[in-house]
Amino acid sequence: MAVYTDVSDEELSAFVARYDIGGLLAAKGIAEGVENSNYLLHTEKAFFILTLYEKRVKEEDLPFFIGLMQHLAAGGLNCPVPVRNREGEALGRLAGRPACIVTFLDGMGVRRPGVGHCHAVGEALARLHLAGADFPMRRVNALSVQGWRPLFEQAQDRADTVTPGLREHTANALAALERDWPTGLPDGVIHADLFPDNVFFLGQTLSGLIDFYFACTDALAYDLAVCLNAWCFEADGSYNLTKGQAMITGYERVRRLEPREVEALPILCRGAALRFMLTRLVDWLNVPPGALVRPKDPLEYYRKLRFHERAASAADYGRAA
Amino acid sequence: MAVYTDVSDEELSAFVARYDIGGLLAAKGIAEGVENSNYLLHTEKAFFILTLYEKRVKEEDLPFFIGLMQHLAAGGLNCPVPVRNREGEALGRLAGRPACIVTFLDGMGVRRPGVGHCHAVGEALARLHLAGADFPMRRVNALSVQGWRPLFEQAQDRADTVTPGLREHTANALAALERDWPTGLPDGVIHADLFPDNVFFLGQTLSGLIDFYFACTDALAYDLAVCLNAWCFEADGSYNLTKGQAMITGYERVRRLEPREVEALPILCRGAALRFMLTRLVDWLNVPPGALVRPKDPLEYYRKLRFHERAASAADYGRAA
Repeated sequence: MAVYTDVSDEELSAFVARYDIGGLLAAKGIAEGVENSNYLLHTEKAFFILTLYEKRVKEEDLPFFIGLMQHLAAGGLNCPVPVRNREGEALGRLAGRPACIVTFLDGMGVRRPGVGHCHAVGEALARLHLAGADFPMRRVNALSVQGWRPLFEQAQDRADTVTPGLREHTANALAALERDWPTGLPDGVIHADLFPDNVFFLGQTLSGLIDFYFACTDALAYDLAVCLNAWCFEADGSYNLTKGQAMITGYERVRRLEPREVEALPILCRGAALRFMLTRLVDWLNVPPGALVRPKDPLEYYRKLRFHERAASAADYGRAA
Repeated sequence: MAVYTDVSDEELSAFVARYDIGGLLAAKGIAEGVENSNYLLHTEKAFFILTLYEKRVKEEDLPFFIGLMQHLAAGGLNCPVPVRNREGEALGRLAGRPACIVTFLDGMGVRRPGVGHCHAVGEALARLHLAGADFPMRRVNALSVQGWRPLFEQAQDRADTVTPGLREHTANALAALERDWPTGLPDGVIHADLFPDNVFFLGQTLSGLIDFYFACTDALAYDLAVCLNAWCFEADGSYNLTKGQAMITGYERVRRLEPREVEALPILCRGAALRFMLTRLVDWLNVPPGALVRPKDPLEYYRKLRFHERAASAADYGRAA
């Protein structure tokens, strides 16, 4: 959500000159993405987004992310397409950081997603899974079940300062998930962070997906669980069954869930809620004093977690039996 | 340099629909300008900048700023042009704030201005002064000599914490300027803040001027003094006579300075340096603890002030006798 690295006009122009996209006409730092610095570029040919990768993105993961966007775009998915420079490289260096120019994608994130948006997201998610099926690279999901205990350990001592009982509840939820976490589900490329910020719409029509910097190889149905968490709850914490139904129906119009995926849906939703609760909790407890950016509320995901703990089957999410 | 006001996709689309600029395709918060929230908009017709005016801009001044940009653009100056909505209004309201859509201007601020840039800025400044000559509205320069003592009084108690002797030196400089400040110089519309951030170039060619939110009615030569301060010193604090010469020559190619303006140049430069030193000093002494934005260094302008105090005539700035 910020521009962390300041680049001079001279550095930018020299960088852009290495690409076959025309001379640089304008560059504006933009507030997009959470982790990186982004500039909107206007060149003699078109508009582009330039991303400078900051510390939280590991440099060794960049070939996966950039290769994935190229692969998905070639497979027909609307996503930013990394542009290759004259030497054929999509990944360069600028101002001491890895840097990539991608195509500009029209559309806007929706603040208040409706049922139609949820249906469209379900469809797009399944298309992403199909388009990613033959992507040859793999990347471990560092924020899946084996990554949750280290986060819990960072946060547990102060968890009850956020709300009483949070520590014990989380400890129990984590132990249960570690014990019961499903294995052997159909896996492949997942987006892993397909929140409303990362899905562009033009009116009701989904125009593209962005921000693949949590993408990894994991159970496909876990990605759906992330989306159910991110899109189908109301501001008051209630689960909107109609939205859930729309999302799952949209997904299954493109890729039918296998019975074991249907069966695993409640525990996958629980895991997804815990994952976002834990990262938010760690951020919440580690805000530098006086910081201007307010971290996201971990309790939103605590409430979602407790909803999932009461769910008995995929029917509770709107999936027809 | 930030987006202070967050606007939903729905509010934005509804706002844009009141203009004849096509449907909204994309909107990105951009880091531009110091005081306001800015969004880059892509519509079916073109790219635009949407500005939401935050607290530091007085709402009653907006008709002056917006009218001025329209007037200057009509007079052939390259600057953002406020777009009128279907009711003929260029000033609207969005998210509880005054808001204006202006045209998108190509070009980039230069980090390290050269002699050619300084010449071009001098020319453009004089063109602005000529284009503004028949602008009918007036706005007092709140940051001219009568505005400096209140700033000094806010800062004086802690001035010496920034550097020893700053308080006494500033008190003396201020008293001298209050006593000797010239009156009756040719006046008109001045930009009053034409720093390198606010001048766009494409290579060596000046492509436009932006950020008219300090513009006011004041001595034209004072605007040149602001620019000499902002463009013609090197990072080590030395005045670059070649740049100053280029800027003044550029200015006078378009508008010849009158003898009394030439004579007043050293004191105008002193005043301009004190003005930026004082506002920076107040900001410097009032940074909230933990703030992410580091304020600009007031001592840069203290050094410039002391250069001007040693200047005997306009020749010391590179103006041929």
